[in-house]
Amino acid sequence: MKLAVIKGDGIGPEVIDVALSVLNQVLPGVETTEFDLGAQRYHRTGDLLTDEDLDAIRRHDAILLGAIGDPSVTPGILERGLLLKMRFALDHHVNLRPSKLFPGVTSPLAGNPDIDFVVVREGTEGPYTGNGGAIRVGTPHEIATEVSVNTRFGVERVVRDAFARAQSRRKHLTLIHKTNVLTFAGSMWKRAVDDVAVEFPDVTVAYNHIDAATIYMVTDPGRYDVIVTDNLFGDIITDIAGAVSGGIGLAASGNIDATGTNPSMFEPVHGSAPDIAGQGKADPTAAILSVVLLLRHLGHDAEADRIDQAVSADLASRGDTPVTTAEIGTRIRVALG
Amino acid sequence: MKLAVIKGDGIGPEVIDVALSVLNQVLPGVETTEFDLGAQRYHRTGDLLTDEDLDAIRRHDAILLGAIGDPSVTPGILERGLLLKMRFALDHHVNLRPSKLFPGVTSPLAGNPDIDFVVVREGTEGPYTGNGGAIRVGTPHEIATEVSVNTRFGVERVVRDAFARAQSRRKHLTLIHKTNVLTFAGSMWKRAVDDVAVEFPDVTVAYNHIDAATIYMVTDPGRYDVIVTDNLFGDIITDIAGAVSGGIGLAASGNIDATGTNPSMFEPVHGSAPDIAGQGKADPTAAILSVVLLLRHLGHDAEADRIDQAVSADLASRGDTPVTTAEIGTRIRVALG
Ligand SMILES: CC(C)[C@H](C(=O)O)[C@@H](O)C(=O)O
Ligand SMILES: CC(C)[C@H](C(=O)O)[C@@H](O)C(=O)O
Repeated sequence: MKLAVIKGDGIGPEVIDVALSVLNQVLPGVETTEFDLGAQRYHRTGDLLTDEDLDAIRRHDAILLGAIGDPSVTPGILERGLLLKMRFALDHHVNLRPSKLFPGVTSPLAGNPDIDFVVVREGTEGPYTGNGGAIRVGTPHEIATEVSVNTRFGVERVVRDAFARAQSRRKHLTLIHKTNVLTFAGSMWKRAVDDVAVEFPDVTVAYNHIDAATIYMVTDPGRYDVIVTDNLFGDIITDIAGAVSGGIGLAASGNIDATGTNPSMFEPVHGSAPDIAGQGKADPTAAILSVVLLLRHLGHDAEADRIDQAVSADLASRGDTPVTTAEIGTRIRVALG
Repeated sequence: MKLAVIKGDGIGPEVIDVALSVLNQVLPGVETTEFDLGAQRYHRTGDLLTDEDLDAIRRHDAILLGAIGDPSVTPGILERGLLLKMRFALDHHVNLRPSKLFPGVTSPLAGNPDIDFVVVREGTEGPYTGNGGAIRVGTPHEIATEVSVNTRFGVERVVRDAFARAQSRRKHLTLIHKTNVLTFAGSMWKRAVDDVAVEFPDVTVAYNHIDAATIYMVTDPGRYDVIVTDNLFGDIITDIAGAVSGGIGLAASGNIDATGTNPSMFEPVHGSAPDIAGQGKADPTAAILSVVLLLRHLGHDAEADRIDQAVSADLASRGDTPVTTAEIGTRIRVALG
């Protein structure tokens, strides 16, 4: 396996180092290439993600990314020029984000409900395309638009992926959108789900408006099995999902090109957390669970299962004493035996 | 006071009847005009909200609305043709939604945190304008767009309103947006907040991305005092805010034309809940608290305070036995003395 590694900014390098040591223990001999991308390179060279970077990244089987982002860079520059550019260039249309409340982990929700669902967030359309613009900027007559672009092609492929995942899980799929206000895009999403549902007769389908869905995340997250949703609603719902299932220190994600044409990318949902960077406080679990998703994506299910069990064992026995980034790595490598 | 009353669909009539009886007790002699709007009239006549309706509504000092929506109507018809049409026609640019965890009310969050903040949601712009469209509908080449429209004029007036509210509260304002992805609109919102901040030197300002804000709503809602945000983010964040502060059965809202040109509208955040309509199960508290917002808006602070105290007393002493819609009304009227 050839793995492109982007450690990135803030706590990125710390959590990726631990994640790689865990990967190496279950699957020795993975070839890694480090890519220097993020705020530091941007400040040094002005480059975000060049065509050469993309060509080199494409020659790998998968990508592991830590976190990108630094307060020294204007909001939007790194996001649009690097993170989103990569998702679009590598056609990462399936943004996969599982949420599971592991035994031993405390949810901020009273009564620690059962939580075990997967969000399939569309990754290459919606309000994320950079469409839109502004005129008369800086005057009292400024107008700014943001355009959400949705295609049947793009919606249908991610809906089909979500149905297939529901089929191999508890056979329940929920579409989240805002069909009563965003009627053009909403009606297309709704029809795509209705049409693809015919191919999966034993999957039951539900629909929630995004606003109602955030309520259910707090009052009844156990109702969800697989969620399919657009790029922006998926961004929002996966953060709240992470929060109720023990914090985004535990939330992993995959940015997947389901056609296999381009390498898929795996990364923790959390950001670069510059406030705690370099202090050994970051929880590497989300990065390690991103390695689990990466292994499953490449067909290494046995290795993925081993790490999953070691993470469960670590979380179940952590107790209330704070553990350092390195200690968590050690605990998981010990559990792996 | 001349009050336009729209009871609407589902549980709307039940909760409004109780709210009106409470209003009548603190302020006898309010003149009410009932407007028959909602699913039933639509089915009977095909009308949603006619020019004549709007003209007649305009001749009132305020509007009290129950809930609009019925599964028999295609999503979007009543929302766009009635609810949103009214917000736009009457220039309800300040959508005011307070969140408070009353003593005695159980939050779904562990540890029942202190919650007391106000969301100022922009009500006439953003992705709610109906801008956008679709081509090749129903074919594999369908494309649907939704356009978020943001003007400096529209953003600045709502930002100024939010600053003024922060000034008279705990002097803290948080802008919620997604400036790192929606860079055109995000940058305009950010600059509007920075510019207006100069007029309110003792208000401190914070910024959260919408995804991070949903996390804080679950882990640390006490951090918020006044939130200002766009139409869609406000829709989402106020539902989760309602959920963490005891359920949207308690969440009130005002749709305010801050210039006073048009009557403002007050309504519970909850929907028509057709599943429990007519069973006396609906909690009228959100409708009653909407009357409180209405009274404050029209300068009847003493009467608003009286109802607020009666609602607090009711909630503090409710216990765990379910109470009917009518019983809650009686309890509050008794508390009003
Ligand atoms: C950093 C940002 C561009 C990104 C997004 O909005 O997709 C992040 O919030 C995420 O969820 O991966
Ligand atoms: C019914 C719908 C149009 C409305 C909205 O999205 O604004 C509702 O969710 C609300 O929050 O008042």
